[in-house]
Amino acid sequence: MLERFKVPEEDRVYVRRDAMQAATETVFKASGLSDEDARLSTDVLMLSDMRGCETHGVSNMLRHYVEWYDDGTVTATPNVRITRESDATANMDGGMGLGLHVGPKAMELAIEKADKFGMGSVTVHNTSHLGMLAYHSMMAMEQDMIGVTVIAGNPMSMTPTFGAELRLATNPWAYAVPAEKMPPFVFDVATTQVAGNKLSLAKRIGSPLEDHWIAGPDGAPMLNNPQLPDDRNDYLMLPMGGTREQGSHKGYGFAAVAEILSQIMSGTGAAFLNPGSMSFWFCAYKIEAFTEVAKFKSDMDEFLQALVDTPPAPGHDRVLYAGLSEHEETQLREKEGIPYHREVIDWFRSLSDARNLGIELG
Amino acid sequence: MLERFKVPEEDRVYVRRDAMQAATETVFKASGLSDEDARLSTDVLMLSDMRGCETHGVSNMLRHYVEWYDDGTVTATPNVRITRESDATANMDGGMGLGLHVGPKAMELAIEKADKFGMGSVTVHNTSHLGMLAYHSMMAMEQDMIGVTVIAGNPMSMTPTFGAELRLATNPWAYAVPAEKMPPFVFDVATTQVAGNKLSLAKRIGSPLEDHWIAGPDGAPMLNNPQLPDDRNDYLMLPMGGTREQGSHKGYGFAAVAEILSQIMSGTGAAFLNPGSMSFWFCAYKIEAFTEVAKFKSDMDEFLQALVDTPPAPGHDRVLYAGLSEHEETQLREKEGIPYHREVIDWFRSLSDARNLGIELG
Repeated sequence: MLERFKVPEEDRVYVRRDAMQAATETVFKASGLSDEDARLSTDVLMLSDMRGCETHGVSNMLRHYVEWYDDGTVTATPNVRITRESDATANMDGGMGLGLHVGPKAMELAIEKADKFGMGSVTVHNTSHLGMLAYHSMMAMEQDMIGVTVIAGNPMSMTPTFGAELRLATNPWAYAVPAEKMPPFVFDVATTQVAGNKLSLAKRIGSPLEDHWIAGPDGAPMLNNPQLPDDRNDYLMLPMGGTREQGSHKGYGFAAVAEILSQIMSGTGAAFLNPGSMSFWFCAYKIEAFTEVAKFKSDMDEFLQALVDTPPAPGHDRVLYAGLSEHEETQLREKEGIPYHREVIDWFRSLSDARNLGIELG
Repeated sequence: MLERFKVPEEDRVYVRRDAMQAATETVFKASGLSDEDARLSTDVLMLSDMRGCETHGVSNMLRHYVEWYDDGTVTATPNVRITRESDATANMDGGMGLGLHVGPKAMELAIEKADKFGMGSVTVHNTSHLGMLAYHSMMAMEQDMIGVTVIAGNPMSMTPTFGAELRLATNPWAYAVPAEKMPPFVFDVATTQVAGNKLSLAKRIGSPLEDHWIAGPDGAPMLNNPQLPDDRNDYLMLPMGGTREQGSHKGYGFAAVAEILSQIMSGTGAAFLNPGSMSFWFCAYKIEAFTEVAKFKSDMDEFLQALVDTPPAPGHDRVLYAGLSEHEETQLREKEGIPYHREVIDWFRSLSDARNLGIELG
C-alpha cells in the first residue's frame, strides 16, 4: 500500500484479530444474519484487515452494511438459488443478500464443479457488496485451484477513455494462485487508476492524489496533485493507465470485460442502464486438470523467487509481486494486532451502546 | 491505432485481401506446411492486416516465420497431441509448430468442450508464435461464446515494477464477445505499456516514444519522448501503467497471471527460467450456459451503444470501445485494399524470385 494510505501513527488503536472478529460477528447477528452468514461476512472483512487492505475491511465498510440492513437496501436472510446450470457453470440469484456471504457460496459451487469437470464458473445477480475479491479467489487457491473473481455494478465511478461521463464502476479483478514455499500470488485490483475506497480513505486522512487519477467533470485529467473534490459530481475516475498514451484504453477494456462477465453474463445488463444492480463472476481452474500439482507449485516457487530476485531500479529497495506484502502484513498483524483509526473504535462503542451489544474494544 | 504507427502515405502500396492471401499461402506452402495449415496461418495474418493490426500481420512477421522454417526453429509438420485431459480442460503439446495453425486447433477443442460442459479451456506447450490473439478469441465469439486467449513465453521484454531486469514477455490478453447489431467487443492488448512489435514499428517509421513506455537498463523510466535505443540491451519495457503511481503494479500483475495461466499451467515453467519456451491458454465460455443468448446480445448492444454515446472529453471527437475502430478499418480495407509499406512488397518480390514462387503483388 502507498504510504499515504496508512492510518497516521497518532490515531492508531491496535486491536487483536479475535477481539475484532467477535465484535463484528456480534454486529452482523444484531442485523439479523444467521450464525453462519455472520461468520462468513466477518471472515471476509477480517481477511481484508489482516492483509492491510483496510479499504475493504471493518473500518470503511461495516457502518454502511449496518445502515443497509437497517433501511432494507439488503436482506439479512436472502433466498439464494440457482436460476440456470450446466455441468461446469451456473447463474445464481443472490436474493439481494450481501455478497459478503452470498459470494462464498457461489465460489463454493464453482469449486465443486471444477473438482468434477476441470473448471467451474458461477455468476451471481441480484446481490450487493462482495467485500475484498481476493477472499473469494483464495477459497479456490486453498483447494489447489486458480481462483478468479470479477465484479461490476453500481454506483458508477469510471469514465471510458476519451469520455466525460460515468459509464462503469471500478470493476475489479482478483486472481489467487497457490505456490509451495513462497507466499501465494494474490492479485486484486480495480480497473480504475485507484480503488474507489482508496479515494475516500485519502480524503479522510487528508492526503492529495496523483496526477491522472481522476478527471474533472468535462473528462480532462486533473493534474498537480489535486485534493479529492467534496462533491461526487465534481470528478470522474479514470481507467487504469490514466491517459490513452499511458494505456488507459487497456484499463477501460479490462473494466468492460468485467462488466460483460458479471453484469451481462448474469443476465442483469450493463450496470449503467440498470441502477442499483451489482453482480459477480467467479471461476475456479483445477490445476490437476492441466498439469501435475506438485510441479505447478514448484514452478510457481521458482517464478515468484525469480521476481523477488530481480535487481531493483534506482530508489527502490526490492521487487515485490502481488500478495507478497499483504502476506508480510498478515504475519505482522498476527503479532501486533490490527491498527484501526480511533474513530473506528468510537463507532463500535456508540453502536454497542445504542443497541446494547456489549462490545468491548481497545 | 495511434497516428504515429501508420505507414506514411508516400510509402503505401494498396493490395487487395485476396491477392495478399494467395501470396501468403504460397509462401507458407513453400515452407512445407500442409494446405490446411497454410490456410489457417494465412487467415490469422490476414485478419490482423484487415483489422489494421499490422504489427501482427504479414509486414512484420512473415519474413521471420520463413526464416524459422528455414533454420528449423519451428516445424512445418508438427505432431500436435493432447498430453492431459479432463471433461472441460486439456493440455496440448504443440510439437514445436507455429501457434498460427496450432492455436486454432486448441481453441477448436476448447469450443467443443464449452459446447458440451458450459466452458472449455486448453493450454498449449512446446510451440511458437501465435500471431494476433484476437483471431483465436473471435473463433469462440462466432459460436456465441466468450473467447479468451492469453500467452507468455520468450523472448523476455518486461521488467517487473521497481525492477531493473527482464523477467516477463509482453504477456498479452484477448477477449472477444459477440453482440447483435453493434460491432463485437474485441479486446487484445499487451500488458506492457505498448506491444513489442509496436516498438519495432515505431523505429522502422522513425517515430519517437512516449514517456514511461520504456526504462533504461537500470530500470529508471525514460522521459522526454525518447527514440528506441538501437541495442535491445539498452532498454527494458515497462508494465502497463508505466510507474507504480500510475498503476504499473496492475500491468505487472496481469502479466504475471498470463505467465501462470499459460507457461505454468501448461507444465512449461516460467519463460524466464526456460529459454526458448512459449505457451498459450485458450478458454471459451458458452453464453447459453449462463443466460439467454438473445438477451445477452441485446444487452451487449445496449452496453456498447451507451459507451459510444458517452459525451467526449475536450480534444476528442468520440468515445470508442475495443474492437470498434478495428471493425471500421476492416470495412475500409475491404473496399480500398490493405496499405502495405512498399518495402513489404519488395520482400515478397525478392522471395518469389529466389524461390521461384510466381507471386505477383502491386
